[in-house]
Amino acid sequence: MRLTLKKIAELVGGEVVGDGGTVVTGVSGIKEAKEGDITFVASERYASLIDETGASAAVVSLNEEGRKYCIPVVKVKNPDLAFVRIVESFAPKPVEFAKGIHETATVSSSAKVGEDVTIQPNCVVEDGAEVGDGTVLCAGVYVGHYASVGKNCLIYPAVCIRERCVVGDRAIIHSNTVVGSDGFGYSTIRGVHYKIPQVGIVEIESDVEIGANVTVDRARFGRTLIKKGAKIDNMVQIAHNVTIGENCVIAAQTGIAGSTMIGDNVQIGGQAGITGHLVIGNNVKIAGRSGVTKDLADDACVSGFPAQDRTKELKDMASLRKLPDLLGQVKKLEERVRELEREAENDS
Amino acid sequence: MRLTLKKIAELVGGEVVGDGGTVVTGVSGIKEAKEGDITFVASERYASLIDETGASAAVVSLNEEGRKYCIPVVKVKNPDLAFVRIVESFAPKPVEFAKGIHETATVSSSAKVGEDVTIQPNCVVEDGAEVGDGTVLCAGVYVGHYASVGKNCLIYPAVCIRERCVVGDRAIIHSNTVVGSDGFGYSTIRGVHYKIPQVGIVEIESDVEIGANVTVDRARFGRTLIKKGAKIDNMVQIAHNVTIGENCVIAAQTGIAGSTMIGDNVQIGGQAGITGHLVIGNNVKIAGRSGVTKDLADDACVSGFPAQDRTKELKDMASLRKLPDLLGQVKKLEERVRELEREAENDS
Amino acid sequence: MRLTLKKIAELVGGEVVGDGGTVVTGVSGIKEAKEGDITFVASERYASLIDETGASAAVVSLNEEGRKYCIPVVKVKNPDLAFVRIVESFAPKPVEFAKGIHETATVSSSAKVGEDVTIQPNCVVEDGAEVGDGTVLCAGVYVGHYASVGKNCLIYPAVCIRERCVVGDRAIIHSNTVVGSDGFGYSTIRGVHYKIPQVGIVEIESDVEIGANVTVDRARFGRTLIKKGAKIDNMVQIAHNVTIGENCVIAAQTGIAGSTMIGDNVQIGGQAGITGHLVIGNNVKIAGRSGVTKDLADDACVSGFPAQDRTKELKDMASLRKLPDLLGQVKKLEERVRELEREAENDS
Repeated sequence: MRLTLKKIAELVGGEVVGDGGTVVTGVSGIKEAKEGDITFVASERYASLIDETGASAAVVSLNEEGRKYCIPVVKVKNPDLAFVRIVESFAPKPVEFAKGIHETATVSSSAKVGEDVTIQPNCVVEDGAEVGDGTVLCAGVYVGHYASVGKNCLIYPAVCIRERCVVGDRAIIHSNTVVGSDGFGYSTIRGVHYKIPQVGIVEIESDVEIGANVTVDRARFGRTLIKKGAKIDNMVQIAHNVTIGENCVIAAQTGIAGSTMIGDNVQIGGQAGITGHLVIGNNVKIAGRSGVTKDLADDACVSGFPAQDRTKELKDMASLRKLPDLLGQVKKLEERVRELEREAENDS
Repeated sequence: MRLTLKKIAELVGGEVVGDGGTVVTGVSGIKEAKEGDITFVASERYASLIDETGASAAVVSLNEEGRKYCIPVVKVKNPDLAFVRIVESFAPKPVEFAKGIHETATVSSSAKVGEDVTIQPNCVVEDGAEVGDGTVLCAGVYVGHYASVGKNCLIYPAVCIRERCVVGDRAIIHSNTVVGSDGFGYSTIRGVHYKIPQVGIVEIESDVEIGANVTVDRARFGRTLIKKGAKIDNMVQIAHNVTIGENCVIAAQTGIAGSTMIGDNVQIGGQAGITGHLVIGNNVKIAGRSGVTKDLADDACVSGFPAQDRTKELKDMASLRKLPDLLGQVKKLEERVRELEREAENDS
Repeated sequence: MRLTLKKIAELVGGEVVGDGGTVVTGVSGIKEAKEGDITFVASERYASLIDETGASAAVVSLNEEGRKYCIPVVKVKNPDLAFVRIVESFAPKPVEFAKGIHETATVSSSAKVGEDVTIQPNCVVEDGAEVGDGTVLCAGVYVGHYASVGKNCLIYPAVCIRERCVVGDRAIIHSNTVVGSDGFGYSTIRGVHYKIPQVGIVEIESDVEIGANVTVDRARFGRTLIKKGAKIDNMVQIAHNVTIGENCVIAAQTGIAGSTMIGDNVQIGGQAGITGHLVIGNNVKIAGRSGVTKDLADDACVSGFPAQDRTKELKDMASLRKLPDLLGQVKKLEERVRELEREAENDS
């Protein structure tokens, strides 16, 4: 694959500054780029790296008007998006799966399978389950009794969708993720734990993407709900009866305990934890590794454990770094006060 | 499904206060309930919510004698347990799997398969493995060489039970959990890590439930042991040679490092971590996100990282919040002492 | 299995002190050992335990010359390594899988399968994929389009290796691990998240071992790289475009965010987190549960969150434990200073 910079500029509706005849043979990050690569500067934070890059060309923002570049560039409004289009031009063709039901798949005669569906080897689709038009079930996917998967979904190998759970249109679910495992609930009588039946479901709305090895537990009753457009990274744990709002973004290894309700557009960093029965408002930002133990109002921005306002947390942490010195300081201060007291005693 | 409140009271051996003719059509949590639903008040903590619930009826505790309710209620000794029975009445019928071995399963001729066993599509049961009476292996379960699964177990899709591991009766294991992966152990010689063979097993006693995407590593030698009645949530990591005591409850995303021994009835919150080679006593409570680095005596109650007595931890954390102010306070104090010293100097 | 201590000493090239005729029937850890077992003392830290062990014999270090033992011992240079050999003598024979392709496996006619390969039930090997000589794919393993697995690998049940990913020779990958799931990347326009295609791959070099339920995301472009000899424990999350250096050891439940580059011989404890776009030097040690937020120079040794030099972190934590007292101390000091000020006022 070889494209001139001029050609690339046409592709993304940008403007060349420098040699439009420069030949581009690949795409790369700004640090790893080598000759022939085109790279991009997504934010001003990385702008200075362009002087050291090994790339032959770059996509940059229209905004940085005054700036001079040592390599030919394509100026666009949104370098991040433009680069997505360029990457696709250079990318290998996406995998295509043959339509139809593979002979090794086990699909119940009472299952409803839509048009243009792909059901790969060793899939199991149980009684009463539904698979919508255009959906791909990769190898070894399990769709339980009366569960339904919407249209144009891409369900990667070995995903398990348990009975009666509902997955909306255009969902992408990565390998080994479990949707609808039992919620974790017991009644304890004299030290013995009796299982509380988890008879609810998981409902996943449209345009949701869920990473690999995620667990979403079914509700005790009612539903565990992931609203439309939410994006969930690998190994996130979502407990029973949780609600995840629209367009939330939740990074890897985060855990959300039972019945917590998370508003729309919430961003949660990796390895965060949120205790049960909380209400988290809209547009909240929760930093990575935070442990949230209280309700949060709309637009809150928190970090730490127990999580608190991010500014206060940073201050507390900076103070903690000074604590060993403070201990010494106070000790000396005490000596000085004792000395002053002694003197005062002698004076009187 | 429609039941009168009178009928429900009979079902759970309770007493109606209010209109016994109230028709109930569903069950729900107290916050999400709508007309037609019955809900419940499990603890006094939630009692006040009953005045705002949308439910048409509720199950409440006999103990709260003086209390008036704005909706008809059923009074019982244990609302939580009574509600379990009501939920089951309204729940869809549990999934039933046909007995027998599915034609796509691969079961070794030397495996011992009990009576009334269900082996679903694509299961693999290796040479010498045993599956006890009444047990269900859902689709794609793997039972390794000479491994054994007890009676009346429910093993969800794609669980992997490796060679020689032992699972007791009535175990429930959720999807994609791995029992018997190799412990993580190497001998490092001149910077290169040589694998230490992990030739032990995992033994899981009776009445244990294990969540989805859990990993339980096999012992270096001997066994990794989970004692009877223990309940383990999703994505918990249990390293080689660990012992989990009877009736322990371990919440999601917790990790327990190698050779640690945990007593009976221990409760561990989510995302906790316990380092290796520790001895944790009976009835210990470890709060969520704790990092335990030392042995703990019976009945200890700890939190924080490094974990310490919960009361002390709360005090430390509260103090930390005051630290930025303290720094300022000490600075001012120093100035005042300096001033006093100056004055004393002048006086003498 | 029964061996005399004399026989065992020959096996490991050691020297018997005590009764060489002692019959050994099993191996065990020093705490759990019972009559008939042989155990070992790997480090001086555990040396005192030998007086209380139930074992009939032990493997000990040549170095501890003066020491007397209450049970017969075999003295060797490296007890840890010697014990590995003894354990193997007593261990059950490792599982052997029949060579060839199982009839239930689905192997594309365009896949290249080497010699002496074992492909177990329900495996799927897609178009253009390669499986090297002597490699074992256990039940249900998925090898995607144009992916390749090297020679003499052992890939445990239900591992998923996605399209175009590359796994080197002698790799061991444990069950339910996902190699090549999409990196977590979106462009957000007016609150809606558009997927950024992840067209790169994962490349795993030779002699790497990866635990169970691990996720290694494919690169946005280019590759996510795990260099030779690295050892990765269960449930580790490795995000897109990360590089893991040679012979790194990463304990369970650790997460490494996108584009971070980790040097050679780095050791990372369990449940640690490393944010994205960092550069971590060679030979760095990161304690368990650390949260690394900044680049680290070669040989750094850090802990805490935000992670800092381990010595400083220990000092900070020790200080924190004294903080509640300090608050009281400063309060008293203030009173004393006020009193001195009052006196000074009166004097003047």
